[in-house]
Amino acid sequence: MEEIKVLPSSLKDFLKRLFLKAEMNEEDADFSANCVVKTNLWGIDSHGVLRAPIYMKRLLSKVVNPNPNMKAIKDDGSVMALYDADSALGYVSGKFGMSIAIEKAKKYGISFVLVTNSNHYGAASLYTTMAVKENLIGISATNVIPNIGMKGNKKPSVGNNPIAMSAPIGGDFPFSLDISLSSVSGGKLLLAAKKNEKIPKDWAVTKEGEETDDPQKGFEGFLLPMGLHKGFGLALFVDLITGVLSGSPFLHDIKSMYKFSDDPSLTTHIFCAIDPTYFIGKDAYKKSIEEWRNTIYATPMIDSNMRQIIPGEIEYKTEIQREKNGIPIPDDLKNDLLSIAENLKVDASFLR
Amino acid sequence: MEEIKVLPSSLKDFLKRLFLKAEMNEEDADFSANCVVKTNLWGIDSHGVLRAPIYMKRLLSKVVNPNPNMKAIKDDGSVMALYDADSALGYVSGKFGMSIAIEKAKKYGISFVLVTNSNHYGAASLYTTMAVKENLIGISATNVIPNIGMKGNKKPSVGNNPIAMSAPIGGDFPFSLDISLSSVSGGKLLLAAKKNEKIPKDWAVTKEGEETDDPQKGFEGFLLPMGLHKGFGLALFVDLITGVLSGSPFLHDIKSMYKFSDDPSLTTHIFCAIDPTYFIGKDAYKKSIEEWRNTIYATPMIDSNMRQIIPGEIEYKTEIQREKNGIPIPDDLKNDLLSIAENLKVDASFLR
Repeated sequence: MEEIKVLPSSLKDFLKRLFLKAEMNEEDADFSANCVVKTNLWGIDSHGVLRAPIYMKRLLSKVVNPNPNMKAIKDDGSVMALYDADSALGYVSGKFGMSIAIEKAKKYGISFVLVTNSNHYGAASLYTTMAVKENLIGISATNVIPNIGMKGNKKPSVGNNPIAMSAPIGGDFPFSLDISLSSVSGGKLLLAAKKNEKIPKDWAVTKEGEETDDPQKGFEGFLLPMGLHKGFGLALFVDLITGVLSGSPFLHDIKSMYKFSDDPSLTTHIFCAIDPTYFIGKDAYKKSIEEWRNTIYATPMIDSNMRQIIPGEIEYKTEIQREKNGIPIPDDLKNDLLSIAENLKVDASFLR
Repeated sequence: MEEIKVLPSSLKDFLKRLFLKAEMNEEDADFSANCVVKTNLWGIDSHGVLRAPIYMKRLLSKVVNPNPNMKAIKDDGSVMALYDADSALGYVSGKFGMSIAIEKAKKYGISFVLVTNSNHYGAASLYTTMAVKENLIGISATNVIPNIGMKGNKKPSVGNNPIAMSAPIGGDFPFSLDISLSSVSGGKLLLAAKKNEKIPKDWAVTKEGEETDDPQKGFEGFLLPMGLHKGFGLALFVDLITGVLSGSPFLHDIKSMYKFSDDPSLTTHIFCAIDPTYFIGKDAYKKSIEEWRNTIYATPMIDSNMRQIIPGEIEYKTEIQREKNGIPIPDDLKNDLLSIAENLKVDASFLR
């Protein structure tokens, strides 16, 4: 597929103008546009600008509320809080939730914040890295519509509920792990199909739920959980502590933004922050975490020219490279964006 | 291999007498013996009584402290606490740590407790189910000696750091997930070797770290993480929040109880409890969690005679069956236990 490359700053300005046209306020539009671009800078192209058209569709129809009023369902100033996001764009919910979590963790050492009645919030590490900027560990997860299932299931039974955790580790970039709980990504099946390769039988099942080593049939079916019962259990647990604990919809009562584009998604996110210096103080943490990082780097490798990487390193390096070389926009996405821009009378000359 | 089956109550009495001979106090001996037997009742035979000989060896040599003095390094009554287990048997550390976590969660809704300077604590779900008995969600994890590694590593680079999470869900048993972060268990490789089957290349590597689909070579090498970079990142994160946050040894500075049987293991465990009714109250939680459970049970299955199981269900059913039929003791383990009993003059007639 043809693609162009665009400057991150141009893309951000464009997205911000779109969000402003959808009646978001200046601060939320700026933060959300930045989230979208950051995601592509990290190389996570399955999220990022690819999702801009559906965000805009939902914002313009007011299914996603461009001017949400975040309401505390329970927050007495303690370590725990539950908020209703008033069907905000997920980025806005995420910024709000992690900000509260950061504030509380600075006071108590830890925090546990749920934000319910929200929508697609993109890459969970957008929020966990907010905590790192405040020298805290960040943890976030969200429930999503069931899209993976166990062997034997005829249909998906649980979401691939993404989780992220980030921590300040000194050096140039934070530890940052951002994963979904499926065995592999759908993209890996497409790649295997292109190469005419068979896939392990614990990656995916056919659309009837039957075992398969055919990547194409797996792609048309559904993904199995990471480590089978392990990822399945983790995904259920995320659904439980988000959906059930907040008194919100869970499992099949959540709505996909694509399949139910006219309905709020009703997802619940969790945001935790932890002060890593709480027990041992700043100096000891700094010393210890540097030794920890260096121990990982010192892992003996088969190829002695290689070095073990730390989660977050690929995203960090991709960001440097894409800041310079631009963000790829496939042609069909470009055309979608041009058409949105034309309808809203937003300048999109950077795309031509 | 030949094996006998023993009554759980006889095994527990026997183990308790052994622990008492090793100068543990009545309460700790009783709790620890119960933990060992419970683990076998759940069917987790890789832990349980299989580990009794090494526990006894280390208790008798006082490497593991039979009468530890749990010392608060930091506990000001808030939601966070760090304790030094004084090289206790891990079960004793676990009971202590989760008890503190439960107490705090009842007060604050959540808790975060680290117990450092500890030893092998067996199945993490022993402690998370303690929380469930108090109507709380329990989470626990521990760091262990590096025993898994990434592709490209010549040697293991991180522990398979087990994590467990349990939650009250009504019905006959709690939700209870207890997993290590390796791709599969070593036992699964042995089984494949016996059946002369090839294994997927993301299960294990040879002892030089080279890719393999040969289960025997994989067994002699080391296991890869669950979902490769996913499990690797999770395992690193567990090591970070246990070892580094507590100012304790981490990664290669932890000692395996087998390889370093004369040294304390220096492991750190984490215990968290969460009140699932904190935000929505008891009645709403009860209603919601039952619907959640029933939704999982209602998953359409390929074989309509089957029903999707919930994590914890297998252990629950195995316990019922083994309470009746007994716990299997392989002959070589039986002989080890008989020899320990003879040395300590403890009656072991139930084993003959």
